[in-house]
Amino acid sequence: MPVSATEATFKAIRHLVRGDVLIMDVGSTKREVIDAARRVLKDQVGVFVPAHPIAGKELAGVDHADPDLYKGRQVILTPIERTLTAQLEKAHKVWTALGCHVKQMSPEAHDAAYAAVSHLPHLVAFALMNGIHSQSQAEDFLSLAGPGFRDFTRIAASDPVVWRDILMSNREELLAQSRLFQRALHALETAINADNPDALEALIDQASSARAHWRMSAIKPQG
Amino acid sequence: MPVSATEATFKAIRHLVRGDVLIMDVGSTKREVIDAARRVLKDQVGVFVPAHPIAGKELAGVDHADPDLYKGRQVILTPIERTLTAQLEKAHKVWTALGCHVKQMSPEAHDAAYAAVSHLPHLVAFALMNGIHSQSQAEDFLSLAGPGFRDFTRIAASDPVVWRDILMSNREELLAQSRLFQRALHALETAINADNPDALEALIDQASSARAHWRMSAIKPQG
Repeated sequence: MPVSATEATFKAIRHLVRGDVLIMDVGSTKREVIDAARRVLKDQVGVFVPAHPIAGKELAGVDHADPDLYKGRQVILTPIERTLTAQLEKAHKVWTALGCHVKQMSPEAHDAAYAAVSHLPHLVAFALMNGIHSQSQAEDFLSLAGPGFRDFTRIAASDPVVWRDILMSNREELLAQSRLFQRALHALETAINADNPDALEALIDQASSARAHWRMSAIKPQG
Repeated sequence: MPVSATEATFKAIRHLVRGDVLIMDVGSTKREVIDAARRVLKDQVGVFVPAHPIAGKELAGVDHADPDLYKGRQVILTPIERTLTAQLEKAHKVWTALGCHVKQMSPEAHDAAYAAVSHLPHLVAFALMNGIHSQSQAEDFLSLAGPGFRDFTRIAASDPVVWRDILMSNREELLAQSRLFQRALHALETAINADNPDALEALIDQASSARAHWRMSAIKPQG
């Protein structure tokens, strides 16, 4: 379900909501989803626990369902001040039972972090595919691409409606991250244009070290 | 061996070159390597067959050697008018015996294509890591990243000296591709800024379809 469908969905299930119900979403942005919950659920917004499992596929739909999708992954819960403790605990238990490592943070911290490590990479991957696609030799170029290209662009195949909503709903944080990215890109281009291999190497070394030291925080999948 | 070390290496082995020898490189750019070969090997440049296997790892050094690295991959040979037929045929046989699918094209066509599908993705991946790294919350952000980030940034861990040389030696084609990429990025940002979800969805859909229809051209690895 794309993030923009959240409000309509809350409205559709509102008549079923009682105090002992737990409602969760799995959206990739949290502030807009929470605003929708406040508007629709009003006094009962406390039964809603906003959740974001850090797992997914570039392929949408029930045909691509995977029973192990959440196993060993992180899930982020972003409760608000009105979230009920009982529901929050129940949410923890549900995700833990699915094999997830549960982390809790504010909706604002969540949206800032995922603008950097998820929404920006998607935006950039879409742009890279479109840049190649805009050229008459696109087919020839693509026929020559290898494993590096395959991994780098995997997320570019993501669902257009889902990602339209994610990028729109987190636009301020996303555009701020994109500015920092473009500044870093221009620094690399400046070193290349200035014929300065030492400066270029230092910039690549910074990126390479940062990536080489990164490890995905998650329980290792068992088998 | 980084591309800029090619000329020194040709000089170091020049005294061993006879007419029945086959010399190949495995560099990711071809024009500069060929220029170095012309300068050093002079009349004997015909024994040199420029080669680029489309396989590799983000990890350098003999510790990360992999006997199956080339199996089922493409290798591009970029002979020049002076390349000897006997050496070119021998090169075909060597790579085929290693399990590669051999493709032949001009050095110019090679460098243009790989600027788009390999050098630009690396440049962009380096910039993305550096953009995140420039922020005080970098560590927190990175601790939240998931499988999409892992695959997208894998190539950012590549060897700084090797990639410094590749980006430098193919700078004109690379910067031209980067301009097209940035134009595509700005089109996406314009749709977001203009609060135009239809335009944004159309742009993502173009990228997503292009990526979904792409298949890596290579023999499937056997087992």
